Amino acid sequence: MAISADLVKQLREKTGVGMMECKKALEDAKGDIEEAIVILRKRGLASLSKKSGRETKDGLIGSYIHNGKIGVMVEVNCETDFVARNPEFQALVKDISMHIAASDPRFIRREDVTEDVLAKEREIYMEQARATGKPEAVLEKMVEGRMSKFYSETCLLEQPFVKDPKETVQDHISLYIQKIGENIQVRRFVRYRIGD
Amino acid sequence: MAISADLVKQLREKTGVGMMECKKALEDAKGDIEEAIVILRKRGLASLSKKSGRETKDGLIGSYIHNGKIGVMVEVNCETDFVARNPEFQALVKDISMHIAASDPRFIRREDVTEDVLAKEREIYMEQARATGKPEAVLEKMVEGRMSKFYSETCLLEQPFVKDPKETVQDHISLYIQKIGENIQVRRFVRYRIGD
Repeated sequence: MAISADLVKQLREKTGVGMMECKKALEDAKGDIEEAIVILRKRGLASLSKKSGRETKDGLIGSYIHNGKIGVMVEVNCETDFVARNPEFQALVKDISMHIAASDPRFIRREDVTEDVLAKEREIYMEQARATGKPEAVLEKMVEGRMSKFYSETCLLEQPFVKDPKETVQDHISLYIQKIGENIQVRRFVRYRIGD
Repeated sequence: MAISADLVKQLREKTGVGMMECKKALEDAKGDIEEAIVILRKRGLASLSKKSGRETKDGLIGSYIHNGKIGVMVEVNCETDFVARNPEFQALVKDISMHIAASDPRFIRREDVTEDVLAKEREIYMEQARATGKPEAVLEKMVEGRMSKFYSETCLLEQPFVKDPKETVQDHISLYIQKIGENIQVRRFVRYRIGD
């Protein structure tokens, strides 16, 4: 059965578990989100406490400078200073900084894409779709497909993680949420390139 | 004789020499800017080429993270990659990053202060000046004095440099412009504090 992106997103927000695992669980649960949570818990991926809903007030500011010419600074939040000082968490922050330097995302999550950017992209993809001469009925589907690609190219959390392109950055973070046992959120980042 | 801030600024732009030196030279030249340039050249502070007018296309991105909780990233431009790789230039970039972490400027230069911030500050200072009960004629002077203080508190280049508060950050940069022989400009910076 087809699982909607929105349902996957809901499950991820409830559990903090990565996208692929959430999708699999929802497929196995035939779209029943409560059942999917049970499946994830059985698989040891989600715990009862909804970690990804918890407030993140502490955290770490990390940076990565490539050759002096490209620089990234990122704020990654967690719940306690104890975790902020955890070497594993610090390694995660470093990895996220390096990822941003390499992959140049424009937004953190798809919700951050501004209305005008969205409208412009849609317009371009619709033009391209029309140019194929295909029936009007499939054009919207083509545009949707291209928008998904746009999100995975421009939104940090949906980009393939540079150190392991089989998972997204959010999947990688979710792994740490499970491992460390605190909610982890990328709050903001900035990327400079000399002369930009 | 009293030298206007505007005249000092002109001389600084023409020569790239620090504020205090420019002011002294203008005083000695009785406000004649061309004469002041000659004085600065005699003192070995300015050279014929107007370095600070030259285009800066290269440079270095530097960062400074304090304890993981405060982070600064800065882009400092120079003219060539050769200078960007100069250890002295790199030390300057590090010093500027540290200065920003410690002194928390809001702008690079006074020209960057937005109109609404300016209007609001003026209003506050005028209120404070009126509260002293002094004659209307001196109120504007009081406001001007307070505005100067505002600039030296909030604008990076006018702040007292943390490692030597007798000079401003611009004075310190000007020293390097003379020493290294290329124009140097702070192009942009960002400062994060966890939870801000």
